[in-house]
Amino acid sequence: MTTPTPRRSIWAWGNESDEPSHADRHAAAQRIAAQHRIDVTAAPLPTLASLQLRPSRVTVPAALADICHQDDYLRASRTFGRSFVDRIRAVNGDFSDPPDVVARPRDEDEVRAVLEWCSDAGHVVIPFGGGSSVVAGVNPPADAGSVVTLDLGEMNQVLQVDATSRAARIQAGAFGPDLETQLKPHDLTLRHFPQSFQHSTLGGWIATRSGGHYATNHTHIDEFVESLRMLTPAGVIESRRLPGSGAGPSPDRLAIGSEGMLGVITEAWMRVQPRPRFRASAGLTFPSWESAYKGILRVVQAKLWPANLRLLDPVEAKNAAGLDGAQSLMIVGFESGDAPVGPYMAQAIAIAREAGGSVDDDEILIDDGQGAPTGREGPVGAWRKSFLDGPGQGNLTMGLGLVADTFETAITWDRWPAFDAAVREAVGQALDATLQGWSLSCRFTHVYPDGPAPYYTFSGVGRQGAEIEQFFTIKQAAADAVIAAGGTITHHHAVGRQHRPWYDQQRPELFARALRAAKRELDPNGIMNPGVLIDP
Amino acid sequence: MTTPTPRRSIWAWGNESDEPSHADRHAAAQRIAAQHRIDVTAAPLPTLASLQLRPSRVTVPAALADICHQDDYLRASRTFGRSFVDRIRAVNGDFSDPPDVVARPRDEDEVRAVLEWCSDAGHVVIPFGGGSSVVAGVNPPADAGSVVTLDLGEMNQVLQVDATSRAARIQAGAFGPDLETQLKPHDLTLRHFPQSFQHSTLGGWIATRSGGHYATNHTHIDEFVESLRMLTPAGVIESRRLPGSGAGPSPDRLAIGSEGMLGVITEAWMRVQPRPRFRASAGLTFPSWESAYKGILRVVQAKLWPANLRLLDPVEAKNAAGLDGAQSLMIVGFESGDAPVGPYMAQAIAIAREAGGSVDDDEILIDDGQGAPTGREGPVGAWRKSFLDGPGQGNLTMGLGLVADTFETAITWDRWPAFDAAVREAVGQALDATLQGWSLSCRFTHVYPDGPAPYYTFSGVGRQGAEIEQFFTIKQAAADAVIAAGGTITHHHAVGRQHRPWYDQQRPELFARALRAAKRELDPNGIMNPGVLIDP
Repeated sequence: MTTPTPRRSIWAWGNESDEPSHADRHAAAQRIAAQHRIDVTAAPLPTLASLQLRPSRVTVPAALADICHQDDYLRASRTFGRSFVDRIRAVNGDFSDPPDVVARPRDEDEVRAVLEWCSDAGHVVIPFGGGSSVVAGVNPPADAGSVVTLDLGEMNQVLQVDATSRAARIQAGAFGPDLETQLKPHDLTLRHFPQSFQHSTLGGWIATRSGGHYATNHTHIDEFVESLRMLTPAGVIESRRLPGSGAGPSPDRLAIGSEGMLGVITEAWMRVQPRPRFRASAGLTFPSWESAYKGILRVVQAKLWPANLRLLDPVEAKNAAGLDGAQSLMIVGFESGDAPVGPYMAQAIAIAREAGGSVDDDEILIDDGQGAPTGREGPVGAWRKSFLDGPGQGNLTMGLGLVADTFETAITWDRWPAFDAAVREAVGQALDATLQGWSLSCRFTHVYPDGPAPYYTFSGVGRQGAEIEQFFTIKQAAADAVIAAGGTITHHHAVGRQHRPWYDQQRPELFARALRAAKRELDPNGIMNPGVLIDP
Repeated sequence: MTTPTPRRSIWAWGNESDEPSHADRHAAAQRIAAQHRIDVTAAPLPTLASLQLRPSRVTVPAALADICHQDDYLRASRTFGRSFVDRIRAVNGDFSDPPDVVARPRDEDEVRAVLEWCSDAGHVVIPFGGGSSVVAGVNPPADAGSVVTLDLGEMNQVLQVDATSRAARIQAGAFGPDLETQLKPHDLTLRHFPQSFQHSTLGGWIATRSGGHYATNHTHIDEFVESLRMLTPAGVIESRRLPGSGAGPSPDRLAIGSEGMLGVITEAWMRVQPRPRFRASAGLTFPSWESAYKGILRVVQAKLWPANLRLLDPVEAKNAAGLDGAQSLMIVGFESGDAPVGPYMAQAIAIAREAGGSVDDDEILIDDGQGAPTGREGPVGAWRKSFLDGPGQGNLTMGLGLVADTFETAITWDRWPAFDAAVREAVGQALDATLQGWSLSCRFTHVYPDGPAPYYTFSGVGRQGAEIEQFFTIKQAAADAVIAAGGTITHHHAVGRQHRPWYDQQRPELFARALRAAKRELDPNGIMNPGVLIDP
């Protein structure tokens, strides 16, 4: 066994060690009250004693007693994902729908035993992953009779490494840092870095089609899955380990993105990389948002396949990298374990400069294998720090009257300018109606030759106690606009329960029927994560 | 309307203009008889008059009379795909299972009307594509009561071009050359070149997960589908046009590879390319097969993403490019419409040379936008001609006692050497038992960082009249070995009916149940191409 994961906080993004103190939050409340002239107080933080969790409604069979936990800590810490709503409810101590049992199987036989028990007894099963869902993907539904949350945290091993094919067989419960630690002695890395990297698992990434490090070319975790095993109430689906195949619709692609509604992914053969030896990194400023997105279109369409290719609008470029508020920032990075990347960077820079981007030659950082620093200095380094620290920042102020969240999508280039305008208009109106001193900004987290994946961030000052209602007003406007303007309700945050109304509009109705029919085969009693993606 | 496609031959690979004469075949028979000392005669070629097709068992409704054809030519020319068995049966005039009707709808409303009629009346519907299936994917099953073959040849238009996003909306019935002709005025190209390019359609490529030009990175047509429309007996599935999405399992991936068993793809938004301006091409010799596949592994794992990266074993390198019979040939090519590719070629050459590959500097052909020749000279050019001419070569000798076919697969690198040995051993034994003067060779048509897609070719002298039986002895041995050694039964030829026994072993049984359940929703009366992929 590797070192146990640090204990997840019952309310904060991250672990217990990431929790601010009540004193810190009290000070934050005073600052917010003074700065925005609103009434706000920091309530006492939730404790296990204060929660008074509903007693478990489930009797665990003796044979499963070792792995089926009903203590308050495990039930409370698996009550919520980490959506804005979850975080508000959690910090306010509203734990009204905890799971009845948290099962932590140590191997596949134990997973199978849990599924059989739950299928027979009619308990809902919720695969938890790392619990970082921001779309209510792991919340026990309020109307479920009894809920067993399935936590694969004990199944966190890299089981096999095939260095020749550059692939590794990894258990689904491995968290990002843990699997990287195990791959490192082989000089290999998955290099899948969703923003939740530290607090999410391989199984969760696959089940939700996570978006990772590779900002172009192989963007989603989908492309790194060589084969997988998924346990369903009806049995196991294991795909053959293959570099490619044309044998019928891909079985993997049914499991990838299924969000626990068909079964639980227990392990996968993943395509891994040699650790990068060659790197290059640069940040280019563009005089405006429009010039910047026209520039990044040209870079991505050249198919140089940078590992990092991101774009920050003027608001984000100012906040994250200190630019002047009119300029946009394009971040471009290449990496390889096998071949120097300088030539690609030179081509990308030439294209970006021709499109109006600016960067000094001495700020184009190239490491040709000597370990020269790249990507951790200047504006790029500033952006990187901001990216990694982002999700935890709300711990200090959550529930203190501020309303802030992100939403992400993808859209083809031809529709992008009108899409951006429509989304900003609709969300701006909703923000005007709900929040004071709001801001709205956008970045491209990933880019494709045929379109960007825009990621919007909004924040503002609402009313303490009304944050959830205010949030939903804005979310509704944002999601309605995204769908009406042709985007997807999610590029990499998944659907869960929160995105259902818009996912239902987006996905073909006959596909939902096909998915429902598949579910009836694999999960005949309908116990697997009901309410995500489809209704029974 | 564009120029009508030339008339498909009822028996030969290609069109009527590709048919050799009886005199040509008679001369070929005499050469074969003399060279191999066997008895062989060229029977008269099949003609519509000689076939005596079974009368149609279907009465076409008056409303569909314009598009539902029952004449002998259309029925005979849509009786077969182009597998070895099909070609033997066709040249021998064994047309015992023709479709009863060939429907050629001109728009989606007419497709819908045909599906509704057939679903109500219980007629089997077989989407025909270009009819180039080599796996019995388009053959009317012998036990079907009545069969309507659906030919989308009249729906062959590029409907919309989005030059900004580099995407085009194309009707599924467009053949390769036809869609390229329509894209050319926009300076765009799909550049999907399966070996059947001239005789296959976009819809067929998508329904069978065709493998194309891009020998690395985006290998299958799957990656070029931005969205699609599929008509099923239960209605239409249309996916949203998006550059990427993480919203649940991909609806497109259910249709891609469904081989007509769920519905018929009517159109798709495809990701297209600018026509290449920058190119580079080279052929490297390696002293042996083993050194060559070890070399190509290193090239592909560097992720330089060449558009062409193929490997010919010593037999193929000798036959196609005149090498010495011990050497292998690696073909590597880069192309781009946006940026010079010289730097990538330099890196690929350096890696390949370090791995033991040889090429003179002046045989590395680079076109930096001036139109210098690349890829049509020397050994690479010889290979290219052989590739394009390949499938048609059998027209002269089919049914004259020779037995020849190809089979293709994919396997991870760690298992590859043992896989190759096992396949050659098993197939060699079967060839020994059935054919005289046989040969067996292999090339990699596509390569992945985690494994190659090997493509084997066998041929030899069998017994006229027994070719089909002899073929199946060899096919059985080959497919058994491929599956036992861990490969896929097909990398890009599809499953159809011919690969069913091995596909059934390869794909997870629960996935088949899910697929069957999906089919019941989309095709409740089970009319769509029964027998491919699954049994009802």
